[in-house]
Amino acid sequence: MKDLYPSRIKGMPAILERKDPIIHSSNKGDGPLSEVELDFYEDNGYLFMSNFFSEDEVTLLQQELSRNMNDNKASNEKHVVRETGGEEIRSVFDVHNNDEFFHDLSSHERLVHIAQQLLGSQVYINQSRINLKPGFKGKDFYWHSDFETWHMEDGMPNMRAVSCSIILTDNYSYNGPLLLIPGSHRYFVQCVGETPENHFEQSLKMQNLGVPDHDSINWLLSKGGKIDSATGPAGSVLFFESNTMHGSNSNISPLPRSNVFFVFNSVENKLVEPFANIPARPEFIANRTNVKPVEPKQMDLKKKKISIQS
Amino acid sequence: MKDLYPSRIKGMPAILERKDPIIHSSNKGDGPLSEVELDFYEDNGYLFMSNFFSEDEVTLLQQELSRNMNDNKASNEKHVVRETGGEEIRSVFDVHNNDEFFHDLSSHERLVHIAQQLLGSQVYINQSRINLKPGFKGKDFYWHSDFETWHMEDGMPNMRAVSCSIILTDNYSYNGPLLLIPGSHRYFVQCVGETPENHFEQSLKMQNLGVPDHDSINWLLSKGGKIDSATGPAGSVLFFESNTMHGSNSNISPLPRSNVFFVFNSVENKLVEPFANIPARPEFIANRTNVKPVEPKQMDLKKKKISIQS
Repeated sequence: MKDLYPSRIKGMPAILERKDPIIHSSNKGDGPLSEVELDFYEDNGYLFMSNFFSEDEVTLLQQELSRNMNDNKASNEKHVVRETGGEEIRSVFDVHNNDEFFHDLSSHERLVHIAQQLLGSQVYINQSRINLKPGFKGKDFYWHSDFETWHMEDGMPNMRAVSCSIILTDNYSYNGPLLLIPGSHRYFVQCVGETPENHFEQSLKMQNLGVPDHDSINWLLSKGGKIDSATGPAGSVLFFESNTMHGSNSNISPLPRSNVFFVFNSVENKLVEPFANIPARPEFIANRTNVKPVEPKQMDLKKKKISIQS
Repeated sequence: MKDLYPSRIKGMPAILERKDPIIHSSNKGDGPLSEVELDFYEDNGYLFMSNFFSEDEVTLLQQELSRNMNDNKASNEKHVVRETGGEEIRSVFDVHNNDEFFHDLSSHERLVHIAQQLLGSQVYINQSRINLKPGFKGKDFYWHSDFETWHMEDGMPNMRAVSCSIILTDNYSYNGPLLLIPGSHRYFVQCVGETPENHFEQSLKMQNLGVPDHDSINWLLSKGGKIDSATGPAGSVLFFESNTMHGSNSNISPLPRSNVFFVFNSVENKLVEPFANIPARPEFIANRTNVKPVEPKQMDLKKKKISIQS
């Protein structure tokens, strides 16, 4: 397969034009997002929806997040990631596969319909995780395009995926919210370097490779005109395009940040061999052939709550 | 001298009531700050004045900052602090003593009159520095009260000092602005630990001792109700009380942050022996007896500019 977006190169990195559509639906009137919302996403590369979930729903989601982390307390499985040098769980990966509640949440009708509208096809979950970022010591996360990593390390051929972050704690400007450069999804920033074997395990804790250079970030910022912060109340949802340049500052504030994170990929954008010359992560090899389209389901988060308490 | 604010203790730290006034003038109508401004400072522990300096003045101040850093490029003197593991200058200390322009700036009439109004006496500069914080890699700086350090390590007896930060680059929420907890200046947060000899040299690069515990920060936040960010355009000036709890997050954005920093102390609050059982920094021993009250001077920053260019 032709590599539309070469990266991890030797020598000077270039900035390439995006070769894929941003909104893949031919008929924009079909889905839950309005034309104004679609235009915002197309122009900026993200869409922040305040109060997507109600307060009651947020309470339940938070309870389920704690319940899941508690279930995994003693786990030494690979999908449980702990703080560097500590026992506290920071993230649990693959929750759409290994947790019933979060499997159901990944099929949430309105979320899935939005993903389908943006990607113009049926969708599957390429990866998922829940994150619990404590206050006082949240580390920063440098600028990156997820697509650069997914393309080079996991073999995602095209820009036809969208990340959905369900925000479960209030995000203020000072507790390390996601920062995004508007319009950056229109350009592919090549990164310098080569990917060593088994890089991905380290990259969960520290971003080393696939790091864009300063000049490219400056250029994107001069095009986009500003940095946007994904701030808003718990229950908000952020959709952001696979190639949108983003990162976050540290969090010395006492206020933690938790979220649930689903990556929807088009079933027409199945993974292939990684474009970097490295072995694929085993859990992504299945996503080359055996993808299960998500069936959108109505989910009554209040009913769920009662059934859990009984 | 009785230690009103014991810290660096063994065992559980406590939160003590402030024992000093916040505004030390008996006659509040005397100075440049209005009653509304004084009330804000008294309630919150800081006052942010947007556009204190004009655009032209900011340009000159920035030029002088670069000129000073350039003058110090090859210096191996102690007052020049470089990036950890790098050659770039991060800060130049003591600029009110070793640089004519910044000596004059430290006597800037309106700044000095504000300091005098807040501290209710003549004032002297207890310390000063210029900071050049580059974009992309600005590190966070954990919560601290300057007074705790100045009291324990430098022998400042009372809370009768004020920091003045002249902001020379636009401060956005996302490029690591100073964060402050409103009302925190009313409480003294004891810190655990003992101060090793020569701690101060390391503390310029990394805050280790004098670190408040999480519970105390949570308590201050619950009292203050919020975290405030010192955001605003270049040319703004922030005055903050010696005991106001503050810190800053990291800065992954490309936008640097530069400022000039003067600490005004009351001539009636001269330094004594450090309250921690450590030797004082040599440069502060002189501030026990030999303090020179600042003579407020009119300073025409535009005229200066012309004389430099000629």
